[in-house]
Amino acid sequence: MTAPVTDLVARATKGERRAVARLVSMVENASPQLREVMAALTPHAGEAAIVGVTGAPGVGKSTTTSALVSAFRARGQQVGVLAVDPTSPFTGGALLGDRVRMQDHATDSGVFIRSMATRGRLGGLAWATPQAVRVLDAAGCDVVLVETVGVGQSEVEVAALADTTLVLLAPGMGDGVQAAKAGILEVGDVFVVNKADRDGAEQVVHDLRSVVRMTERAPGAWRQPVLSTVAARGDGVDEVVEALDQHREWAAGSGDTHRRRIRRVRDEIEAIAMADLRRTFADLHGDDRLDELAAAVLAGEYDPYAAADTVTASMR
Amino acid sequence: MTAPVTDLVARATKGERRAVARLVSMVENASPQLREVMAALTPHAGEAAIVGVTGAPGVGKSTTTSALVSAFRARGQQVGVLAVDPTSPFTGGALLGDRVRMQDHATDSGVFIRSMATRGRLGGLAWATPQAVRVLDAAGCDVVLVETVGVGQSEVEVAALADTTLVLLAPGMGDGVQAAKAGILEVGDVFVVNKADRDGAEQVVHDLRSVVRMTERAPGAWRQPVLSTVAARGDGVDEVVEALDQHREWAAGSGDTHRRRIRRVRDEIEAIAMADLRRTFADLHGDDRLDELAAAVLAGEYDPYAAADTVTASMR
Repeated sequence: MTAPVTDLVARATKGERRAVARLVSMVENASPQLREVMAALTPHAGEAAIVGVTGAPGVGKSTTTSALVSAFRARGQQVGVLAVDPTSPFTGGALLGDRVRMQDHATDSGVFIRSMATRGRLGGLAWATPQAVRVLDAAGCDVVLVETVGVGQSEVEVAALADTTLVLLAPGMGDGVQAAKAGILEVGDVFVVNKADRDGAEQVVHDLRSVVRMTERAPGAWRQPVLSTVAARGDGVDEVVEALDQHREWAAGSGDTHRRRIRRVRDEIEAIAMADLRRTFADLHGDDRLDELAAAVLAGEYDPYAAADTVTASMR
Repeated sequence: MTAPVTDLVARATKGERRAVARLVSMVENASPQLREVMAALTPHAGEAAIVGVTGAPGVGKSTTTSALVSAFRARGQQVGVLAVDPTSPFTGGALLGDRVRMQDHATDSGVFIRSMATRGRLGGLAWATPQAVRVLDAAGCDVVLVETVGVGQSEVEVAALADTTLVLLAPGMGDGVQAAKAGILEVGDVFVVNKADRDGAEQVVHDLRSVVRMTERAPGAWRQPVLSTVAARGDGVDEVVEALDQHREWAAGSGDTHRRRIRRVRDEIEAIAMADLRRTFADLHGDDRLDELAAAVLAGEYDPYAAADTVTASMR
């Protein structure tokens, strides 16, 4: 391991902010030194509770995340926040959203806040987010909150990333049946209806509770609580923290946390292997060869399986 | 090629409904015969306009899709509809949503409608959806509408899948700034504010237009139209069809369609290569070996890059 990386990792595991920020940037930029960084960090990781916070735009994710940070800090816990931003596949520019709400915590040395663009890549979350989480985990965070915009596929990814997934809803954003259609019921461990002072909030809570109640589950399985908050005022946030604690305890005892973590690392390993395959292929045949193969498939001269064979053959 | 597959493909390319349905099922179930199917279908595909329809739950995607189907049918076009359903990573059960709205078209021989579960897999869209689109394309559809729930990562995937992406919004689902935060501005080619008879619709249209106007773009680049509809009554649907036509013409002329299609096939090739890698590894080392590697990483005994090396080494 090169001296600068050893030094950086040593400083990050002591919680030094600049070193932590530097390592997250290395993840974001897919630094060639990541291999060394991850090898050095892995033994230090595994203690943090990873909590995913997700929901459609406008439900109050940043406000809720900020309120949760305050609650964890009040218990003396170190907190990491990773806001995963959707990014254009065309320009590469991240829309950082209202990080401004996090500014309350910007000067708190017990809080690491980081936005990260996933570059609009398919599977963008697959290795970058778990690696960034690993950095915050190894830096001594007791809790890492991973905030993602999204309803749908990205939530499925968050469910795979987190030990506990908190799904936020708000009145006026579609009812419980719409929520069920979006597939959120099966990825959420804790449901929170935010903006509970607005019209229709009680109905959303009621609908969700009905759907949760009607869902068949095995004996001993987790039953998702449906809570309500007005996160901007801090109302109901303590109950959310309590529900997160309860889920954590249940998931650790049932083996659920271990299973999710295995799945997360497995996805990361596969994503790294795929990146390696892509790089080996480009080294052998040039950066444009995959585009040429794709063009041949589009022209009907080749089929995608034959093209994939060419890619995997480059590893032999 | 085995006789049944040859026969099935021949029948599907003549537009025979049962053969088309059978091929889509083979895609959905990852049939081992897909390789033959895709090799036989590829020369027949490439004519259809692929239109992605996406937006948050509750904006009226099914209603809008159904209205678009009627409009395309009125022009005498063959239409395929592929509704990609979010699926639990835990139970594998798809929530088929309100396919009932599509029943108007169920007996029309010029319309193929199919729901497909993506099985909650990371990258679930990567090969299954393009392959199902290829089936509908080769079956003679002039237009294939790919309807997905989602705001966020899944939209990025839809943008990669489609030649033209229609993003649906509705009043009360967050304003234009929220939309910008969700990253939809850069994936949408045509924006439609549905439920335009509701309060706040004009404001959403106004906000979106402002954001579109302020977005910097290269000379000759596409400027996204922002339209409004009441899809349930068919209001504004003809204007949407016209905007889709205009985008198609622009995208064909600018090379944008070709670039997107290259990207789509490239992603499909890589997804197939990855599936091959996974299978080869499991054949060599057993189905559980990847989980064992992941467990070693979790225990801090191994790093994810070393684990990935073990996977890629299985190809050598």
